[in-house]
Amino acid sequence: MALAYSISRILEILGDDCEVLGTFEGTIQGIASLSEATTGDLSFLGNPKYRSAVADSQASVVLVPKDYELFPSEGQLYLKLENPSFALALICRDIERTLLPAPAPGIHPTAVVESGAVIAPEASVGAFCYIGAEARVGAAVLASHVCLGRSAIVGDGAEIASRVSIGDYCVIGERNRLLPGCVIGSDGYGYEYLDGAHQRVPQIGNVVTAADVDVGANTTIDRARFGSTQIGQGTKIDNQVQIAHNVRIGRHCLIVAQVGISGSTTLGDGVVVGGQAGLAGHLNIGSGVMIAGGTAVVSDIEPQLKVRGYPAMPMMLFNRMTVLQRKLPDLFKRFDQLEKTVKSLPSESQ
Amino acid sequence: MALAYSISRILEILGDDCEVLGTFEGTIQGIASLSEATTGDLSFLGNPKYRSAVADSQASVVLVPKDYELFPSEGQLYLKLENPSFALALICRDIERTLLPAPAPGIHPTAVVESGAVIAPEASVGAFCYIGAEARVGAAVLASHVCLGRSAIVGDGAEIASRVSIGDYCVIGERNRLLPGCVIGSDGYGYEYLDGAHQRVPQIGNVVTAADVDVGANTTIDRARFGSTQIGQGTKIDNQVQIAHNVRIGRHCLIVAQVGISGSTTLGDGVVVGGQAGLAGHLNIGSGVMIAGGTAVVSDIEPQLKVRGYPAMPMMLFNRMTVLQRKLPDLFKRFDQLEKTVKSLPSESQ
Amino acid sequence: MALAYSISRILEILGDDCEVLGTFEGTIQGIASLSEATTGDLSFLGNPKYRSAVADSQASVVLVPKDYELFPSEGQLYLKLENPSFALALICRDIERTLLPAPAPGIHPTAVVESGAVIAPEASVGAFCYIGAEARVGAAVLASHVCLGRSAIVGDGAEIASRVSIGDYCVIGERNRLLPGCVIGSDGYGYEYLDGAHQRVPQIGNVVTAADVDVGANTTIDRARFGSTQIGQGTKIDNQVQIAHNVRIGRHCLIVAQVGISGSTTLGDGVVVGGQAGLAGHLNIGSGVMIAGGTAVVSDIEPQLKVRGYPAMPMMLFNRMTVLQRKLPDLFKRFDQLEKTVKSLPSESQ
Repeated sequence: MALAYSISRILEILGDDCEVLGTFEGTIQGIASLSEATTGDLSFLGNPKYRSAVADSQASVVLVPKDYELFPSEGQLYLKLENPSFALALICRDIERTLLPAPAPGIHPTAVVESGAVIAPEASVGAFCYIGAEARVGAAVLASHVCLGRSAIVGDGAEIASRVSIGDYCVIGERNRLLPGCVIGSDGYGYEYLDGAHQRVPQIGNVVTAADVDVGANTTIDRARFGSTQIGQGTKIDNQVQIAHNVRIGRHCLIVAQVGISGSTTLGDGVVVGGQAGLAGHLNIGSGVMIAGGTAVVSDIEPQLKVRGYPAMPMMLFNRMTVLQRKLPDLFKRFDQLEKTVKSLPSESQ
Repeated sequence: MALAYSISRILEILGDDCEVLGTFEGTIQGIASLSEATTGDLSFLGNPKYRSAVADSQASVVLVPKDYELFPSEGQLYLKLENPSFALALICRDIERTLLPAPAPGIHPTAVVESGAVIAPEASVGAFCYIGAEARVGAAVLASHVCLGRSAIVGDGAEIASRVSIGDYCVIGERNRLLPGCVIGSDGYGYEYLDGAHQRVPQIGNVVTAADVDVGANTTIDRARFGSTQIGQGTKIDNQVQIAHNVRIGRHCLIVAQVGISGSTTLGDGVVVGGQAGLAGHLNIGSGVMIAGGTAVVSDIEPQLKVRGYPAMPMMLFNRMTVLQRKLPDLFKRFDQLEKTVKSLPSESQ
Repeated sequence: MALAYSISRILEILGDDCEVLGTFEGTIQGIASLSEATTGDLSFLGNPKYRSAVADSQASVVLVPKDYELFPSEGQLYLKLENPSFALALICRDIERTLLPAPAPGIHPTAVVESGAVIAPEASVGAFCYIGAEARVGAAVLASHVCLGRSAIVGDGAEIASRVSIGDYCVIGERNRLLPGCVIGSDGYGYEYLDGAHQRVPQIGNVVTAADVDVGANTTIDRARFGSTQIGQGTKIDNQVQIAHNVRIGRHCLIVAQVGISGSTTLGDGVVVGGQAGLAGHLNIGSGVMIAGGTAVVSDIEPQLKVRGYPAMPMMLFNRMTVLQRKLPDLFKRFDQLEKTVKSLPSESQ
């Protein structure tokens, strides 16, 4: 994964805002953190707490904030910028385009396209893709082994990675990014117990994702019993998340890896759910709620609250309880002592 | 996903049991809950607690129980039935058959079938399926990208969704439904530490599922070290469940999403395991046990018990403890106060 | 899955170390535990606690340790060995080779190989594999439906199961075993909140696994933001594990099913992480640490420590706390009683 970026190319990417200090004659061959960078690497000061690490860094080029006061070593270059993190992202985006060029439009000859499916001429459909009957694919990129169900829709600008399954009638919004192995529109888990066995409840709804949604690798989102399981605009879902039937997630939420959300639960906008948290079914989670990793949510949460615990409680209470639980052994000892003391009081005083 | 169901077709599905009140002239174009339904929708009163929502519902057709006492609005139709939920399931099943017609029998020309494999003439084998040597496929449906291992067996009536892997020598029972991305018969996680490294213990067993088993999307079930990992008849497994080698699950169990069951643990019949629960290895879980979501089970459980917690304890004790934990801050304060009081007692009384 | 092993073949596998007691005339048709074995089965005494089960076992052949003192029944054979578990592994390895013969070298005619890719002549590339441009495949086995990204590398002796995705530029070490559905090198979950939306941070790094790494079914390992997500030599990862971008895992670690490790966290050598444990980001976990199943790790851990809990604490403290928590109902009662007692003390003594 060797890079070879000239300083002039980097200055071109960063634009006019950039103040140059020192010199470096070579090419940039890698990006690394301040402490791990060596000659030929570019690094950056994104988090103020690493400020002291800049002077010791072996990086050949360092992106620093405008107010950084020290000077580069011999053969080292500092680039002073308003927002070094954002500047780094610009460089990385350019590198990404070089490393991973977009595939040419067209349908790979091994792909199978069923009757009635409509694929935009700008679309790229990879090897071994299966496009179901009546499906519609916009100006999107489908990598290899993608399964698109009957009458499913993929919006313009979407990137569907290898081995993604999109179920029948599901709708994938514009600029969605679906990572490898994720499953959109699998059957909801619904049964009724009848005559000594669990009878399947038909699941005739679909999944609808709005624009700019990301779905992580091997994540699963079930189709609705009827109606739609919905993911709001700009919501980003990490790997191995499970979203059950009829869940509705608002706009700009972050759902971290291995979270599970049970059927018919609704999340407002801007909700953050930490890794491995679990939400019971039929709950209302208000906008702006933050749920810490590993939390088990079993009741509704008012907007803007921060919760944690098993089961969930206000973050402050959880933190207090965690401290006190560790003092339990001591409390029990003190209690035994106190009980003894009281018992030993002279009888007339008891 | 627009439907177009005439009232006469719906009455035909529901049969003689149905009492008609009011009139609706149009066609049914969707199904929705009482509160979300609009004109053209069919809704239903399944749960008595929503009884008061019927009168306000904008649904054009509502399935209500026989004893429902109010009358439909102008242009609205009530259908009175013994069991509205069951009636809805009948309608949904019919809709499902219309939306998702069964594929025609036959082997897709892109499928690869190795030597000695036997596929029933009624079977449908989809695009890009790989059928291993000596495998046998009954009158089942395999969607696209299914991998069937050497000498594996798929029973009659099974539905294997896209991108399912069924390992060598595994046996899938009749009418099983395997959802996208699930993996049956992956190698068990078994190592012995020898000469400073973890040496793999060969896993030469298989997975055997009985009839009417469902396996969720991206769920994994490992093959046995020797013998079989077993799933009992009618057991329904949700998405992203992990079942380790040599586990045995009884009949009619429900295993909710993201549960993990460690090696050689045995579950009786009718066990319910809530989402994200984890079970240690080599345990015996009795029939009828209910394990709440997120519970960590580290020892055997007697039949019919309900448990919850980390680690698991009787549900009643967990609930009591949860209440008391929240009172810990208060208890510590009261205790400090009491200790002070006792200490301040006049010396002769101590 | 019927076997047919002659006793002479088994003696050949076990070699000279084996002492023979009794006789069995038939062929070995299965392997089972002492209590479940029947005629025709081979069993073994691996764990001393089952010593008493040997005499009652119906197995036709039993592997026992050298110092086992009893004698076989009529028609039963005991094979006395230094290490019966190891002997069993030798037999199972032989059975495995018989049941699952290695595929012949060559590239399946349905596979797609992009320009510039180099595949060793000893490699076996299965049906529907997609090999990206410039990728390199050593003397490895790729089952069906494997996706290998641009410029990715697979080392000699690696076994890549069906439906594995290996991302662009990722490097898979020698003798790695990747199980079905796992995803190596999916995009890291990195966003910056800007202008009211989560902007994706480009992820231009890769994943590098050292030699002898196993990765379980449907596990996901994200590519680094820059640099590499690293898995050390001999580390064994179970099913459905999530490893985020820039994580570094040392040598000979065991990561059990459904564990989640957040971004940039580092594990030393020989770390054991129990099932469903979760690790926050940017942590340092020392070598030899043991993290119990279900534990939530939110801060660094010193080498060799054993931790458990939500959040993690020393194992001893967790165990003590668990016992005491169950006594909380009793403590609250005793406390109320004591408070009452103290209050009832005559006023002059208070």
